[in-house]
Amino acid sequence: MSANFATQYRIYYEDTDSGGVVYYANYLKFFERARTDFLRSLNISQSLLQKEEGVIFVVSECQIKYRKPAKLDDLVTVNVVVENIGVVSIEMKQQMSLDDMLLAELKVTIVNLDASSFKPKKISDSLLASLRGC
Amino acid sequence: MSANFATQYRIYYEDTDSGGVVYYANYLKFFERARTDFLRSLNISQSLLQKEEGVIFVVSECQIKYRKPAKLDDLVTVNVVVENIGVVSIEMKQQMSLDDMLLAELKVTIVNLDASSFKPKKISDSLLASLRGC
Amino acid sequence: MSANFATQYRIYYEDTDSGGVVYYANYLKFFERARTDFLRSLNISQSLLQKEEGVIFVVSECQIKYRKPAKLDDLVTVNVVVENIGVVSIEMKQQMSLDDMLLAELKVTIVNLDASSFKPKKISDSLLASLRGC
Amino acid sequence: MSANFATQYRIYYEDTDSGGVVYYANYLKFFERARTDFLRSLNISQSLLQKEEGVIFVVSECQIKYRKPAKLDDLVTVNVVVENIGVVSIEMKQQMSLDDMLLAELKVTIVNLDASSFKPKKISDSLLASLRGC
Repeated sequence: MSANFATQYRIYYEDTDSGGVVYYANYLKFFERARTDFLRSLNISQSLLQKEEGVIFVVSECQIKYRKPAKLDDLVTVNVVVENIGVVSIEMKQQMSLDDMLLAELKVTIVNLDASSFKPKKISDSLLASLRGC
Repeated sequence: MSANFATQYRIYYEDTDSGGVVYYANYLKFFERARTDFLRSLNISQSLLQKEEGVIFVVSECQIKYRKPAKLDDLVTVNVVVENIGVVSIEMKQQMSLDDMLLAELKVTIVNLDASSFKPKKISDSLLASLRGC
Repeated sequence: MSANFATQYRIYYEDTDSGGVVYYANYLKFFERARTDFLRSLNISQSLLQKEEGVIFVVSECQIKYRKPAKLDDLVTVNVVVENIGVVSIEMKQQMSLDDMLLAELKVTIVNLDASSFKPKKISDSLLASLRGC
Repeated sequence: MSANFATQYRIYYEDTDSGGVVYYANYLKFFERARTDFLRSLNISQSLLQKEEGVIFVVSECQIKYRKPAKLDDLVTVNVVVENIGVVSIEMKQQMSLDDMLLAELKVTIVNLDASSFKPKKISDSLLASLRGC
């Protein structure tokens, strides 16, 4: 399946641990950066969404498989595939790879929440239009 | 099911993000702390395992459900339940809660690796004995 | 000089980098935890300060000297010495040590800010009383 | 003074805290990324230095002034100015800015260490040549 978006990130010391490879929680940071940059590529800014529409995207579920470790100085590619768009939530699949080698895979469910009450809120039509058009 | 281990951690500024709650990747840090402290309670030190037996534990898969957000200053409880012990891997279930409220749940698979080759290695008998006795 | 406060923290994988020791930025996390726990010991909660008085403490300057590296599994002691209390700011000295060995030292200046405007604000009398009484 | 190197980084959720701005320790991550990318621009790879020459760069001292907060979605510029090169150490000045606004300044001292003994070691002639030529 072709990805909706892909971009590259560098691995720095901050990302590694004393096992010599990227710390397991930090893969989620790179996956989140790619989702944010994907939204940015659609002219969707999460800081503006929070300020102007009073909504935030919150992750409700993650399933992550670690295949091969990412290492210091690696330039990894992270992609985003939108799998399903519901009334209040979005499902995506993401992969991190180094050249042709798959490093990690993520299935993630994101819920659109009211930023004050933290209750699920219908995804706005303009957001839907952007996501469906990509 | 009763937990094999449970302990408490404080939420500090470093753990939160500008959404006002704990950043989604950081829950994995607290779950990892609890696994480390569980092993420590069995007199198993990961830094000694690496130095003396040349093995490291590496997470191969995570499934995490976020129920309610953890917040600044919360004193959360994180537990560990050993679900299954295989030849080279261990499956655990973990929960983070605040008083009686469940915040997040994790299913995690950990693989015992040779620290140099990063290949799976049979879990040593002494380690097995400690894990099974708990 | 005797410290106003001291407490202990464990070093976990998340804190280390592939150099095998604690990542240089992460010492600041432990110093901040100790300042937060010091305030908590005086019944000062930063999340309540933000909600009820609309103020936040922000670090304006740090001077940190790294003496010896902290390592995985270390149980380090971090202390807090209040050096000077001004109208809008507080200066503290802090040390991180392992048993009798000094690992790192910090001089830090903290400014009391209005949480909305991010402008300096006079430290409240009740806060001053708590800090001076310790 | 003109910088030896400058590059840009994006601010993501992972970098912020519940105060709404970048967490104070995380500025050091961006400064370190810029030093690493500066060295990379001179064809110096820290992971190769560790593997092939058995040396690592370790920060021995930092002085950081926080002028204005960096915020979610900001695209900040971080520069590097080499101030002084000694026998075993290097002093640099760095600035983080957003457009024309200075956000933070760092003076940092880096020591060249033997990766096994953690003792200071003379900076190699080839490394010196690269640093002086920039």
